[in-house]
Amino acid sequence: MLSRNQLKLLTSLHLQKYRQELGVFPVEGVKMVNELLASNFEIQGIYATAEWINSPYATSVDPNTTLTIINDQELQKISNLNAPNQVVAIARMKSPEPFRVLHNEWILALDQIRDPGNLGTIIRTADWFGINRIVASYGTADLYNPKVVQASMGSVFRVPVHYAPLREFLAGCNADMPVFGAFLDGQRIQDAAFGSQGILVIGNESHGISSEIESLITRRVTILKAAPSGQGRAESLNASLATAVFCYEINRNRTITAS
Amino acid sequence: MLSRNQLKLLTSLHLQKYRQELGVFPVEGVKMVNELLASNFEIQGIYATAEWINSPYATSVDPNTTLTIINDQELQKISNLNAPNQVVAIARMKSPEPFRVLHNEWILALDQIRDPGNLGTIIRTADWFGINRIVASYGTADLYNPKVVQASMGSVFRVPVHYAPLREFLAGCNADMPVFGAFLDGQRIQDAAFGSQGILVIGNESHGISSEIESLITRRVTILKAAPSGQGRAESLNASLATAVFCYEINRNRTITAS
Repeated sequence: MLSRNQLKLLTSLHLQKYRQELGVFPVEGVKMVNELLASNFEIQGIYATAEWINSPYATSVDPNTTLTIINDQELQKISNLNAPNQVVAIARMKSPEPFRVLHNEWILALDQIRDPGNLGTIIRTADWFGINRIVASYGTADLYNPKVVQASMGSVFRVPVHYAPLREFLAGCNADMPVFGAFLDGQRIQDAAFGSQGILVIGNESHGISSEIESLITRRVTILKAAPSGQGRAESLNASLATAVFCYEINRNRTITAS
Repeated sequence: MLSRNQLKLLTSLHLQKYRQELGVFPVEGVKMVNELLASNFEIQGIYATAEWINSPYATSVDPNTTLTIINDQELQKISNLNAPNQVVAIARMKSPEPFRVLHNEWILALDQIRDPGNLGTIIRTADWFGINRIVASYGTADLYNPKVVQASMGSVFRVPVHYAPLREFLAGCNADMPVFGAFLDGQRIQDAAFGSQGILVIGNESHGISSEIESLITRRVTILKAAPSGQGRAESLNASLATAVFCYEINRNRTITAS
């Protein structure tokens, strides 16, 4: 049973303002909470139905974590999902670590990815293809938005995202590392010979890479439309799909280099 | 100004039941309506604010199409979007054409893609990479769902989607054409040498390719996670992202073959 104050607090976390004020964020549903429990994020509290509390999943909860039993109506109230799923955990945000560019690694740089679903999907894709470093411009969606957490399918607990002034960041490293960006007039990515290190800039969903960032790109590349007869008629590829194709090609190249 | 009956009719089209009953579907916003106007879909009527009606876009409307001027409140009422955008057009669905498998082409076969956003994104991806034929199982999301139309960014007007019993369809052609499906134990797609024709089966978001379809797959392939050290930790790739990587690789191969 939730007190009025608890209810108020939990629903306030749907808003970024209160998440940031309190330094915590909600994680929802059986699958996501499992991923959270397997991560090194600190859990402040878990609110769950009897079904979840009696399930094997609950056994991996640290004994010091407060576990509150709630009913379906309460779950409905505190949930962000259309179909709430047994459990909501409140996790503590991590304080950003200083970001240092390492060599021999790939970094994704997000230039104002606004859609939480896209951000989550990009993090999941990076995780799949073993790209473990993401830098995001301040205009990018909030990492702790419930839709980001959900779309990342838990990858948000594994791949750190560093918010930074992107222009300064790229200006500081584009002499040492190639900085790739997608443009319609670029080199075909299959010919780009992605090496063992680089930065890949992903542009905003509607406007692509912003002009202040464009000048810092050292390698313009393109994902070719249908060939040979060029029947491809879609105007653009969605930002997260383009990221997947890039990461695939980067990983493909790593595989070739390594074998 | 909309009559009560018009208002009722237009809002009823948010539901599949009424769209199917009437054989029409709504298309929203400046960009989507432009794509619609450029397509060969028949338009039954357009409801737009003065701003749109006085814009250059309105000049491409067929003089026989009924154009109704509405105010912002009315637009808000009939819109499916959080931020309605000037215009809603009502388009007539196309009656399904008989589907015949041609040689020398690629077909996407969708095995219960439930999420409208994913379906729209897959259609957009197919369009980008010049795959113009899509077969969808009956359990797949409704092509005329506003979210599908929106996520396809207009590709829904160019790439026909045929709903069919997928098992029968594949059983009828898997002797003539390779049928590819993604599984964790498959051949790496960079080694698969996709030729000039084939069927690519995309499985459901949660359950992958269903067992009744799995037995009809003749080529098991996989999108490799991070290599060489296998750091990739995400459990799976989202269905539409996997489609993008597949279509990219198919198109990459076509490009090589052709050059």
